[in-house]
Amino acid sequence: MAKVIRPLANLYEQLRRLPGVGSKSAMRLAYHIINMQEQDVKRLAEALLTAKQEVHLCKCCFNLTDSEICEICSDTKRDRHTVCVVEQPQDVSAMERSHGYEGMYHVLHGSLSPLDGIGPDNLYIKDLFERLQHEPVVEIIIATNSDVEGEATAAYLAHLLKPVGIKVTRIAQGLPMGGDLEYADELTLAQALANRKEM
Amino acid sequence: MAKVIRPLANLYEQLRRLPGVGSKSAMRLAYHIINMQEQDVKRLAEALLTAKQEVHLCKCCFNLTDSEICEICSDTKRDRHTVCVVEQPQDVSAMERSHGYEGMYHVLHGSLSPLDGIGPDNLYIKDLFERLQHEPVVEIIIATNSDVEGEATAAYLAHLLKPVGIKVTRIAQGLPMGGDLEYADELTLAQALANRKEM
Repeated sequence: MAKVIRPLANLYEQLRRLPGVGSKSAMRLAYHIINMQEQDVKRLAEALLTAKQEVHLCKCCFNLTDSEICEICSDTKRDRHTVCVVEQPQDVSAMERSHGYEGMYHVLHGSLSPLDGIGPDNLYIKDLFERLQHEPVVEIIIATNSDVEGEATAAYLAHLLKPVGIKVTRIAQGLPMGGDLEYADELTLAQALANRKEM
Repeated sequence: MAKVIRPLANLYEQLRRLPGVGSKSAMRLAYHIINMQEQDVKRLAEALLTAKQEVHLCKCCFNLTDSEICEICSDTKRDRHTVCVVEQPQDVSAMERSHGYEGMYHVLHGSLSPLDGIGPDNLYIKDLFERLQHEPVVEIIIATNSDVEGEATAAYLAHLLKPVGIKVTRIAQGLPMGGDLEYADELTLAQALANRKEM
């Protein structure tokens, strides 16, 4: 009974695999693409292929780049004495948007999660220690997420880094800017209280 | 300050144009695509191009197809005496899923919407009348949406079709199956009441 148009069904199946694209939105996207100008579809397809082919990891910090060394690592104006360790390339973008940091980065590409089978060897942790051999790093700021895996990763890194004699810090936890005390969750509030500063 | 990776930014811009893809989900999709296997990205890009190139409108009913005449129009088992008029190809799929209809279709590709500059000439209305010349149509079921534009289109078509001497019907409006009276909107309820049937 169902009349399947093969190329449309195939497009639907491919779109369906993308994160956050359910069956309804995959169908909606597929019909939209059929209605798009052919040159726009070509542009989208090329953008997909080019991004995949040209974007890779920076040899130094493992952030995404289309050169050998990313723009941050090759920027001589940045402070090479601090390295901010984050989980994902997206986190580098988030930090950069804050305009609050002038140092270097190191992207782990994940966090420790034994339940998912992700141990230290699955992250770029060894590479961080290699960097310390020939870079003048004085402080490492651990900016992993504030969830269980992020905290575990932070604790693990601190445990390894302290004996090396490097200052290890963790980004602050507390009430978000503009945050309303009434709607803050208990854990955040407890952290905000514990981390209080003299004014 | 912002470090732009050109191919990634370009992919983001292309994804951002798709319906229902906001800036956050475009970014999420872009990063996901970078992390996908290259062959999967190629498969997605090819699916896009192939769908756009091979899918076009059926010469008879203007539904989507990858042949000259769509599978429904070329199915000799279907009833050629009724034509169901819908707004979009998606609506044909919806009707087919209901398994309640064995006749033919005619896709208008839109609805009358003077505010958006869409008049009768922008829809496949003339083509519907051409079909009536050489097809044994006895009844036309108007299954446009139940919104203002859909109702206006239905009224317009009925007005044109009745003088031709063809039976024109409109799909029923009422409480959806499994629908809760308590949560039905007033208009739906009013229609359900007005269209009540003897049991």
